Amino acid sequence: MRTVFWENNELKMIDQRVLPVRFEILAYRGHKEVAAAITDMVVRGAPAIGAAAAFGLALAGYESASSLTSGLLADLQTASATLKAARPTAVNLAWAVDRLMAAASTVSAERSADEIRQLVLDEAQKLADEDVEINKRMAEHGAALINDGDTIIHHCNTGALATVDWGTALGVIRTAHEQGKKIHVFVDETRPRLQGARLTAWELEQYGIPYEIISDNTAGYFLKAGKVQKCFVGSDRTAANGDVANKIGTYMLALAAFDNGVPFYPVVPTSTIDLSLAHGDLIPIEERNPQEVLGLEFEGQRVAPINAKARNIAFDVTPNKLVTGIVTENGVAYPPFEVNLIKVVKQ
Amino acid sequence: MRTVFWENNELKMIDQRVLPVRFEILAYRGHKEVAAAITDMVVRGAPAIGAAAAFGLALAGYESASSLTSGLLADLQTASATLKAARPTAVNLAWAVDRLMAAASTVSAERSADEIRQLVLDEAQKLADEDVEINKRMAEHGAALINDGDTIIHHCNTGALATVDWGTALGVIRTAHEQGKKIHVFVDETRPRLQGARLTAWELEQYGIPYEIISDNTAGYFLKAGKVQKCFVGSDRTAANGDVANKIGTYMLALAAFDNGVPFYPVVPTSTIDLSLAHGDLIPIEERNPQEVLGLEFEGQRVAPINAKARNIAFDVTPNKLVTGIVTENGVAYPPFEVNLIKVVKQ
Repeated sequence: MRTVFWENNELKMIDQRVLPVRFEILAYRGHKEVAAAITDMVVRGAPAIGAAAAFGLALAGYESASSLTSGLLADLQTASATLKAARPTAVNLAWAVDRLMAAASTVSAERSADEIRQLVLDEAQKLADEDVEINKRMAEHGAALINDGDTIIHHCNTGALATVDWGTALGVIRTAHEQGKKIHVFVDETRPRLQGARLTAWELEQYGIPYEIISDNTAGYFLKAGKVQKCFVGSDRTAANGDVANKIGTYMLALAAFDNGVPFYPVVPTSTIDLSLAHGDLIPIEERNPQEVLGLEFEGQRVAPINAKARNIAFDVTPNKLVTGIVTENGVAYPPFEVNLIKVVKQ
Repeated sequence: MRTVFWENNELKMIDQRVLPVRFEILAYRGHKEVAAAITDMVVRGAPAIGAAAAFGLALAGYESASSLTSGLLADLQTASATLKAARPTAVNLAWAVDRLMAAASTVSAERSADEIRQLVLDEAQKLADEDVEINKRMAEHGAALINDGDTIIHHCNTGALATVDWGTALGVIRTAHEQGKKIHVFVDETRPRLQGARLTAWELEQYGIPYEIISDNTAGYFLKAGKVQKCFVGSDRTAANGDVANKIGTYMLALAAFDNGVPFYPVVPTSTIDLSLAHGDLIPIEERNPQEVLGLEFEGQRVAPINAKARNIAFDVTPNKLVTGIVTENGVAYPPFEVNLIKVVKQ
């Protein structure tokens, strides 16, 4: 089963907020509800929200009452703005929506409104199918970097749940495991929303890959102790110079890997590489509700004082100096990224 | 009120496991219960557990049925081993117990068993009183490093709760605040036991010092964004070369401070400096029950899969290359620490 899929004229998605306690599929018939689901993190992970937004735009086509091509395109334009505003950091949310709008607009003079509705849905389905294929190609390139016996630190969730299927960084680990390599994964729990402890641990159990959960701040201990051979992470947006925006905590993990000479590999579909941004400081960083930090309970009691304030920054930027190589579906780019990243993107 | 104090022939301690939800004082009459309270983290923080162990040894004196000096000393020796085994990393647990045993043994030929019982208690009380006085001296030295308007990152809890009173790193912040300096504190929540979100936030509210809680992995974001001027942390044991063992996550915080040119200051009473260890890799590091990592609940539901495994490393070692200066009660030691740390200890 895919994380994000089209069935019976509905967008269906695994509800990632309730895993691993419950496994539930939610169905969507409106693009505004899809945008809200992206904001609320029913679906998360850059490739998965790209596909969700694409199907959301297809829903917007069927929601539009217009029988005229021009009216439909105007409605799609409005819907695409709503979908793109759902979350700011992952670039392939915009990338997916723009791709569908470009496809719809190019043919608009020749087709009826209903033909365009179908075309947008077909393009969304194609994008989703391609995501799985791209992930498997990335996984092959990345798995070649893993040796039998490696222990790997992984941050956040980048598996099947973060994509349409298979995963990016976790897809690499999964492919290495299927190749028969014996690996062990330290799973960063990934505060504040704990995607590692909830989702990555759940996925690794499905795949039979041995793992142990650690608090994010424990990664440095194991790296310094020589217990880790590689780090693999995802990315929500990578700048032209190889600066990598990813889930909060990635930067500190990269610092600890670098300080101990452990290779650090972001695994990023080229759809998440934003060549229009020269460096990572230009990437917009989302700040979320402090309640995600403060809502924690431990041994049955709320942790923070009742009036406590908090800051909840969702992403950080890892500077390219800390990045060993960037794994894409077209191969691994190495420094200087300013030169080599464009080569893998343009392939 | 002190965190650890003697009253009515009992050792009394604030129960730090239930703050900030409840404020409770527990009373102890036996040294084995005190050792268990240290292990279970009723009391935590290197200076506080040193004082708790000292009063625990005083209790052992009264528990001993021996009327002979030699019998009492043997019982105290057994009790001191029990107390020292309660937690391995903080050196002043052993330092406090050894100091009392040395005092008791030196005078043993001349005194009665009851006189030695009283002497051990007097020495424990003296050690506790000295802790407060030492903390205030450290705080003065440290506060001189803080400028009006500074934003400070603080890890774990190092306040009145971590000591007999006033605090180490948090004592520095408290003194700077009392000097009228306007400061803002980013409070690392400090997974897995969340001493920052629970205890430091609670203390800062008492003192009226503005703060915001952040997940540990967010410190790097704010350091890189230029929003932080200094980091202050405590230490459970500092080696002769200035390598600092402290609560897990300190090393990754120090890396992020160093990468952004932000000064990083451990605040350590000289009782936590272990000149017998040449470097930090020789410091024993405690590993605790994985349940402290796995027991987390968020929005009312358990986070990790029910069969998940975890590792729970309680401390890490920050190498001296990342340390700007070490604040002690005798002044601030700067690199080279191999030369300058011994000077502040021997004063």
